[in-house]
Amino acid sequence: MAIDCSTSAAKAVVVARNGDVCASGRQPIPLRTPGMDRYEQDPADWWAAVRAAVDEAVAKVPGDDRRRIAAMCLTHQRETFALLDRDGAAQRPAILWLDSRAGDQIRRLGSPHVHELSGKQPDTTPALYKIAWIAQNEPSNIEHAERIVDVHAFLAHRLTGRWVSSTASADSLGLFDVRRRTWAPELLRLAGLRPSQMPGLAEPGAPIAPIRPELQHRWGLADGIPLIAGLGDGQAAGLGAAAIRPGIAYLNVGTSIVCGVHASGCLLGSAYRTLVSGIPGRYVLESVQNSGSVLLNWFREELGDPGLGGSVDPDLEREASAVAPGSEGLITLPYWNAVQTPFWNPFARGAMIGFGSGHTRAHAYRSLMEGMAFELCSNLERMADDLGHPVTELHAMGGGSRSALWRSILADATGLPLILSSVAEVSAHGAAVLAMAAVGAYPSAEAAAEGMCHRGERTDPDPGRAAEYRRWHAIQREFYPAVKDMFERIRLTAGPDA
Amino acid sequence: MAIDCSTSAAKAVVVARNGDVCASGRQPIPLRTPGMDRYEQDPADWWAAVRAAVDEAVAKVPGDDRRRIAAMCLTHQRETFALLDRDGAAQRPAILWLDSRAGDQIRRLGSPHVHELSGKQPDTTPALYKIAWIAQNEPSNIEHAERIVDVHAFLAHRLTGRWVSSTASADSLGLFDVRRRTWAPELLRLAGLRPSQMPGLAEPGAPIAPIRPELQHRWGLADGIPLIAGLGDGQAAGLGAAAIRPGIAYLNVGTSIVCGVHASGCLLGSAYRTLVSGIPGRYVLESVQNSGSVLLNWFREELGDPGLGGSVDPDLEREASAVAPGSEGLITLPYWNAVQTPFWNPFARGAMIGFGSGHTRAHAYRSLMEGMAFELCSNLERMADDLGHPVTELHAMGGGSRSALWRSILADATGLPLILSSVAEVSAHGAAVLAMAAVGAYPSAEAAAEGMCHRGERTDPDPGRAAEYRRWHAIQREFYPAVKDMFERIRLTAGPDA
Repeated sequence: MAIDCSTSAAKAVVVARNGDVCASGRQPIPLRTPGMDRYEQDPADWWAAVRAAVDEAVAKVPGDDRRRIAAMCLTHQRETFALLDRDGAAQRPAILWLDSRAGDQIRRLGSPHVHELSGKQPDTTPALYKIAWIAQNEPSNIEHAERIVDVHAFLAHRLTGRWVSSTASADSLGLFDVRRRTWAPELLRLAGLRPSQMPGLAEPGAPIAPIRPELQHRWGLADGIPLIAGLGDGQAAGLGAAAIRPGIAYLNVGTSIVCGVHASGCLLGSAYRTLVSGIPGRYVLESVQNSGSVLLNWFREELGDPGLGGSVDPDLEREASAVAPGSEGLITLPYWNAVQTPFWNPFARGAMIGFGSGHTRAHAYRSLMEGMAFELCSNLERMADDLGHPVTELHAMGGGSRSALWRSILADATGLPLILSSVAEVSAHGAAVLAMAAVGAYPSAEAAAEGMCHRGERTDPDPGRAAEYRRWHAIQREFYPAVKDMFERIRLTAGPDA
Repeated sequence: MAIDCSTSAAKAVVVARNGDVCASGRQPIPLRTPGMDRYEQDPADWWAAVRAAVDEAVAKVPGDDRRRIAAMCLTHQRETFALLDRDGAAQRPAILWLDSRAGDQIRRLGSPHVHELSGKQPDTTPALYKIAWIAQNEPSNIEHAERIVDVHAFLAHRLTGRWVSSTASADSLGLFDVRRRTWAPELLRLAGLRPSQMPGLAEPGAPIAPIRPELQHRWGLADGIPLIAGLGDGQAAGLGAAAIRPGIAYLNVGTSIVCGVHASGCLLGSAYRTLVSGIPGRYVLESVQNSGSVLLNWFREELGDPGLGGSVDPDLEREASAVAPGSEGLITLPYWNAVQTPFWNPFARGAMIGFGSGHTRAHAYRSLMEGMAFELCSNLERMADDLGHPVTELHAMGGGSRSALWRSILADATGLPLILSSVAEVSAHGAAVLAMAAVGAYPSAEAAAEGMCHRGERTDPDPGRAAEYRRWHAIQREFYPAVKDMFERIRLTAGPDA
């Protein structure tokens, strides 16, 4: 059984050795936005949602079969953290990965050295800066916190009584020495934390402890069923889609666009953040664009047919499919939510160039998809340079990958085949892969990933369109260098709140 | 009586000494678009529409009063020309100012020297390049043409039997020595014409000849009523709005945005084309943007509510009014139809920078208006530099000036008061001004313009918003230099037809 405690919901799946999903449950998690760009959750809601999702899943499994569930494993939203008191209760709401209140702290504390040590560029997501924000604005919350935990450690404690995170979960907090694979005292000091506040660590796939007896009983599980140390949802998606071999990338076309590839060593570069993999001793290089479905949703809501209220518009999709590659010279920098890899500029914004009076709504929509595909391609090229070998295949998942148009643009613009995962919950599937290897059903996590993965439709790039896209991409690459000084001036003129 | 034979319609107005309009008539003129970017009309339609418009106007004037009409004067669409045979009939359809078939000829024949001689930058509008196109593609049409005429000479012949244009009409063809105020043999040669093919010239306000007896009779006019040499519709709008004194500009917020100011000498610069004025011996410096209502219409049609089919959207207008100056950092280069003044780059295209997820349809719409206002402001500053004194007031007209929002943006972004003309047909009004001065009802054309002008609502700039716009304009100025090399690359990649 795997549990994915993501930003929007907790999901529980019971998975067979061959990767078939036997049962699943799902429970939404409330999100609070107490201020502009602030995102919080109550950790008690994580646990309540996980319990309800598991309740739902096991209810679909016949009683005898429940006892055949051999292990549990966790995956979860990354970078999110909670401050807990002596009783394990939250002192304040948990602060989420997408919370961007800590701009000052990023500027003040972020540095190439922090990147070098943690593998994470100074940016919105790592918890480091938000913990420093609390240390500055709510100092007693840090002082009196018995523990600082990520989602993994919080749920592991609820499930087993042990405060343990996985190295492939904890590293996303930005407090972690990514080479030594343990907490970095220097980064803890920078955030204002004491080492004693941090949870214990296990390597992914290692057994942590048995599930608490009362939960075993509640769910009808076998005695002594272990919790296996899990991993962050990004890396888990890579395992779930069996994107492990050199050059095979996982591509999550979700709210954001996240693309990861395995590396045998701990590489560092601007085009990716460096994460601990679920595969023993290995790393994941992961590019991230905070555009994705969120940008297409914005377009449909703000510049689409108001009658549709931002929902998917089949006519728009069809019309955009009929537009030629390059959108007749309309070129997009998709930085509506700043740029992450490879420029890491929090002040970058979206831009479009090349408008003529012949352009339609469909051209603009297609150009946004193309801009995101060009960014992906640029990131993949930089990753390939650092890896020393090309990326050759994209294993895709996420809501955006349901669009045949977007799949074809992504394949054509990168020149790579794109293979859909046919599993509904790919991250949970990746946690199930770790658990299956941990109980010995496969000789290794790699073998479990290959044995359990279910592939769907394949989209091959069209050589002619790929050649056209190379020409347009060459122009799109010039856009950011040409205008980047304008972003700083826009920020200064718009004022500190913009 | 004044006649305005514009691109879309012929309009006839009977105007009293105090500027009151006693009667008017209007007749549309069909437009043909035989190919992409080709725009043609049948000169016979010009004359038919003029006759019908005058028929309608005089029908509204009591019989006795018709005989009190003291003169007729013409204004008309500029740069448009016709090739006529021995009988005065068109050999081929007339080619309009907005026809852009002659890109090759512009590149081959256009030069700073042509600008120096004619006052017109190498660009789409002057007839010179389109005549050269005919000489190359339809040589027999040039060879056998008895006459090449602008709209003024064509109608003057129909009205009086004389082939005469005005210097303030003919100069727009680009075949004219703007300093000597006559045809330039060098430019005629460049176009492939013989001097004998050109009509005679009169200074604006000079009597040409009496109206033909059969027309006098048809319209019930007094015997011997003269046709007065007129002027192009841009300069006519300046007279109609009494924008004559130093620093007073006329601003036509129409399909395009045209802004002119009088100069005592024949100045030359990139921010304006240099035209012969209707005021004896003077010149008009005129900036032109081929954006304007056409760009807002494009936005509403392509990115507005599809239910409204591109029509004016009061909700959008209201929401855009509520957005702060600067559209929260969304900045537009309004070059959807290339850029004319001051960069004269036929390959420039529209661009927008600064998008964030908080931007709405209303922000984008407002940003387009702001971008056009910034361009106007830049052009006015360059004109003021060349004139040696500032522009201090805008006398506005055209469909776009009906938007209170756009008026306030234009006033705030330029820092200048904007005074609406309350006359429906401002160009025709300007031709009436010339006629009134010609018959001695005023001591001069200037005095007639002041005496006959009817002013409407005044919009003063708000000092606070004007200061905000100065900051945003400073950033907008950087946009074109930053991206101009991309336009050339987009053109090369899009191919010759794009």
